[in-house]
Amino acid sequence: MHRVPSEPETRFALGELAAQLGAELIGDPAQTVSRIASLDTADASAISFLSNPRYLPALANSKAGCVIVSPTHRDTAALRGAALIAADPYLCFARLTQLWVARGRAAIAPQVHPSAVVHAGAHLAPGAAVGALSVIEDGAVIGEGTVIGAQCFIGAGASVGAHTRLSAQVVFGARCHIGARGIVHSGVVIGADGFGFAPHEGRWEKIEQLGGVRIGDDVEIGANTCIDRGALEDTVIEDGVKLDNLVQIAHNVHIGAHSALAGTAAVSGSTRIGAHCTMAGGAGVVGHVTLADHVHLGARSVATHSIHKPGLYTGLFPIDDNASWEKNAATLRQLHRLRERIRALEKNNETKSS
Amino acid sequence: MHRVPSEPETRFALGELAAQLGAELIGDPAQTVSRIASLDTADASAISFLSNPRYLPALANSKAGCVIVSPTHRDTAALRGAALIAADPYLCFARLTQLWVARGRAAIAPQVHPSAVVHAGAHLAPGAAVGALSVIEDGAVIGEGTVIGAQCFIGAGASVGAHTRLSAQVVFGARCHIGARGIVHSGVVIGADGFGFAPHEGRWEKIEQLGGVRIGDDVEIGANTCIDRGALEDTVIEDGVKLDNLVQIAHNVHIGAHSALAGTAAVSGSTRIGAHCTMAGGAGVVGHVTLADHVHLGARSVATHSIHKPGLYTGLFPIDDNASWEKNAATLRQLHRLRERIRALEKNNETKSS
Amino acid sequence: MHRVPSEPETRFALGELAAQLGAELIGDPAQTVSRIASLDTADASAISFLSNPRYLPALANSKAGCVIVSPTHRDTAALRGAALIAADPYLCFARLTQLWVARGRAAIAPQVHPSAVVHAGAHLAPGAAVGALSVIEDGAVIGEGTVIGAQCFIGAGASVGAHTRLSAQVVFGARCHIGARGIVHSGVVIGADGFGFAPHEGRWEKIEQLGGVRIGDDVEIGANTCIDRGALEDTVIEDGVKLDNLVQIAHNVHIGAHSALAGTAAVSGSTRIGAHCTMAGGAGVVGHVTLADHVHLGARSVATHSIHKPGLYTGLFPIDDNASWEKNAATLRQLHRLRERIRALEKNNETKSS
Repeated sequence: MHRVPSEPETRFALGELAAQLGAELIGDPAQTVSRIASLDTADASAISFLSNPRYLPALANSKAGCVIVSPTHRDTAALRGAALIAADPYLCFARLTQLWVARGRAAIAPQVHPSAVVHAGAHLAPGAAVGALSVIEDGAVIGEGTVIGAQCFIGAGASVGAHTRLSAQVVFGARCHIGARGIVHSGVVIGADGFGFAPHEGRWEKIEQLGGVRIGDDVEIGANTCIDRGALEDTVIEDGVKLDNLVQIAHNVHIGAHSALAGTAAVSGSTRIGAHCTMAGGAGVVGHVTLADHVHLGARSVATHSIHKPGLYTGLFPIDDNASWEKNAATLRQLHRLRERIRALEKNNETKSS
Repeated sequence: MHRVPSEPETRFALGELAAQLGAELIGDPAQTVSRIASLDTADASAISFLSNPRYLPALANSKAGCVIVSPTHRDTAALRGAALIAADPYLCFARLTQLWVARGRAAIAPQVHPSAVVHAGAHLAPGAAVGALSVIEDGAVIGEGTVIGAQCFIGAGASVGAHTRLSAQVVFGARCHIGARGIVHSGVVIGADGFGFAPHEGRWEKIEQLGGVRIGDDVEIGANTCIDRGALEDTVIEDGVKLDNLVQIAHNVHIGAHSALAGTAAVSGSTRIGAHCTMAGGAGVVGHVTLADHVHLGARSVATHSIHKPGLYTGLFPIDDNASWEKNAATLRQLHRLRERIRALEKNNETKSS
Repeated sequence: MHRVPSEPETRFALGELAAQLGAELIGDPAQTVSRIASLDTADASAISFLSNPRYLPALANSKAGCVIVSPTHRDTAALRGAALIAADPYLCFARLTQLWVARGRAAIAPQVHPSAVVHAGAHLAPGAAVGALSVIEDGAVIGEGTVIGAQCFIGAGASVGAHTRLSAQVVFGARCHIGARGIVHSGVVIGADGFGFAPHEGRWEKIEQLGGVRIGDDVEIGANTCIDRGALEDTVIEDGVKLDNLVQIAHNVHIGAHSALAGTAAVSGSTRIGAHCTMAGGAGVVGHVTLADHVHLGARSVATHSIHKPGLYTGLFPIDDNASWEKNAATLRQLHRLRERIRALEKNNETKSS
């Protein structure tokens, strides 16, 4: 079998990392690391981090060449070798991964692949890159430093902002817009028709979807996620929103800035989600309701009405061994009658007492 | 930045709309509208509608150039300006959106884009259009007026009926069929293998899926939805069915005419859903069961057995603030034992009474 | 309308089937069958099977030319015509479907379609096939007998093992790997970024995902399923795993050998699922937990904690007519208080008894 070329090695001196990350270095600035790893899998070539105090026992035993810790764990870290001291080690780790990629990732040449089908009426910034076999239609606008991956489709009149990156096989529909520095993963479909029909004599009459999708800056959208175009106005995703894979955003939805929705979450039509909200995996919101800012929904929990107070909300049937579940689920169907029986018992008691 | 060309303006005279929609006009037939909007965002250039009586207060204050209302609200509407009177304003609105699109949408030329890869054994009607970089395999049949979007895949022996439109990046598998006037959105996969395996010594032996997928006329299928091919016979979607995004239809399923499934709904293998059924967002049906006609499933509700009686069925854990949910969920696990305790109390009472 | 060419007919003599399936034949070895069908739809040209005893009544009445049965039903089967006797009729049926496809499916020529865009640095085995309009990037390795369907994307440094088949429009990300004899259906996205962010001043700082995806041999992956790359190490899918459609596998997940996940199942980040587990449709597991080998989750049931004991686990709100559900769901929100009231009644009883 042929040799698979590995990524070119990424190597940093600790002194350089301290400078770039704004962290204090304990140790030799010339020492290098070439890998990021968790505390227990790290070796001398790796840099690791401690963000969750429950992994503290792993810190002392870690073979990592360097560890990122908070000032609190400075001494423990220093006892075992080099350390970077940062106020927020997890944030420092996040930025470390960004440095890693910035160095390791090959720069993408600002060129349009000759196999791409680009309409003469499309507007590409000089620094935009378009991958092989992509299609860009009339009037689409591709920004400076923007990367359209291979086999993407950009519809007529759509715009993709500066430095936004689309992975392979993204569908970005006509007259939809995304701002700067976005990341859109493969299989995403932006701007399919919202699900709108008027019932008529047992059939469904299509309501054509005349709105678009408007996405802000710094938005990331996970693989195979769908954001439908609005019926009359636009579906809106504000700045800094993060959507995971296989998420469903129906027409006319509005998602406030910096909210994050985990995998398979779903938001029904015309619902408004505030800023800084989170939805855990598979959480949902029904249509035509409003969630305030800072509302958090637990895994698979469905908001069936508006929620005006910030906080964590949950609605999930607790898992159990199947035999126990069967008994409890069967009883659940009689729960209302059980309450009546309790009430009857209470009345009976009162009568006897009086 | 370059100018993004806007859609060519769509403008209608009210007299023309009244004629085409079969509605009665109160007002000047020469007055024009160039936008459809909701009652509260409409201005003088817009036409709006009132279908839900709870928006009645918005009617009187609306700045819309014209409103569509039922005969009941004729007087209120007439007091504020032009109106179209229709028996069913929502249906009238649906048809209005269709007029809008029919006028605004550029006609698609019946041509095969030179970059498409079309097998010599494929049969394309003279009026069919095939988008850039699509692949059409041997024996596929594309109907009159049918539009295959960019980057689609049409497998060998598949057929796509007259005037059906596939958006960009649809996969339509070998020997699968869809009728006339269908709409298939991007990312849809028709005809992947059903999930069938025979267990054997701790491993899974593949059951090859020999059936196809048969889809009727006037069916709409949302983005990234999957309909698997049958194991031996075909998976069947009857006329007029509407599927939203990210819906999963397993092998051998049969969905009756004019049923509608909202986003992320899922139907397991060999299940039969009647006609005129609806499944709300994320609803599901287990395998090998039957739903009668006119059965409606609430959001995230899962039918675990056949349902023979029309009606609305629900099974959804109510959401609550997390602290309350924790207490109730913990108690739920003891529900069966609580019932026993109530029974004991009742017996005890009876003993005392007797 | 043009004639749709049908599949070339597949026809087997019963003697040949008995030999290839290792089954005992009762009947004429020269008799042929040209179709596989269920007991009730089979005619004289078809072969059928009985695996589930509850279909025993259908056996006697079946018009099938031949039936596959276990030794137990030998006599019943023989009374009605030809039969193949196999220890495990369902396994025998599975292998029959494989024979069917092996004969009926046209061999795919080991060629690279001229419209594919293959980087000069990619390594294709001489016997590999690459479909129309696929893109294969630098350093990718495609194995012997491997089939890359039309319009696929294979990222830089990725490898696809021998005799693995990718359907049309699969995205297989950079530095991701799949072993031999795999099947990957359309719309699958392997190697999108895991969903990792560090919160910082109300915003989300991206954690670049530096790991890959490592998939073993004999793995099947359903349409539009997503498997994200790991944050630091690889996301791992072991040998023989079967994933259905629209399944979400988050970063750093590890799925043990021969586990099977049905449609719309979802596994959150850093969770470890054992070998020989099953997840029914829409089941889920939260992040950072472990399921032992042979754990089975019921439909839509979510494991919110580690499960160390093999067995079947369920957590699903039972469906009911909507009116009953409303009463029970409302009462459920007071369940904890109901328990308190029962306790009070019990105490009251004790007091009276003492």
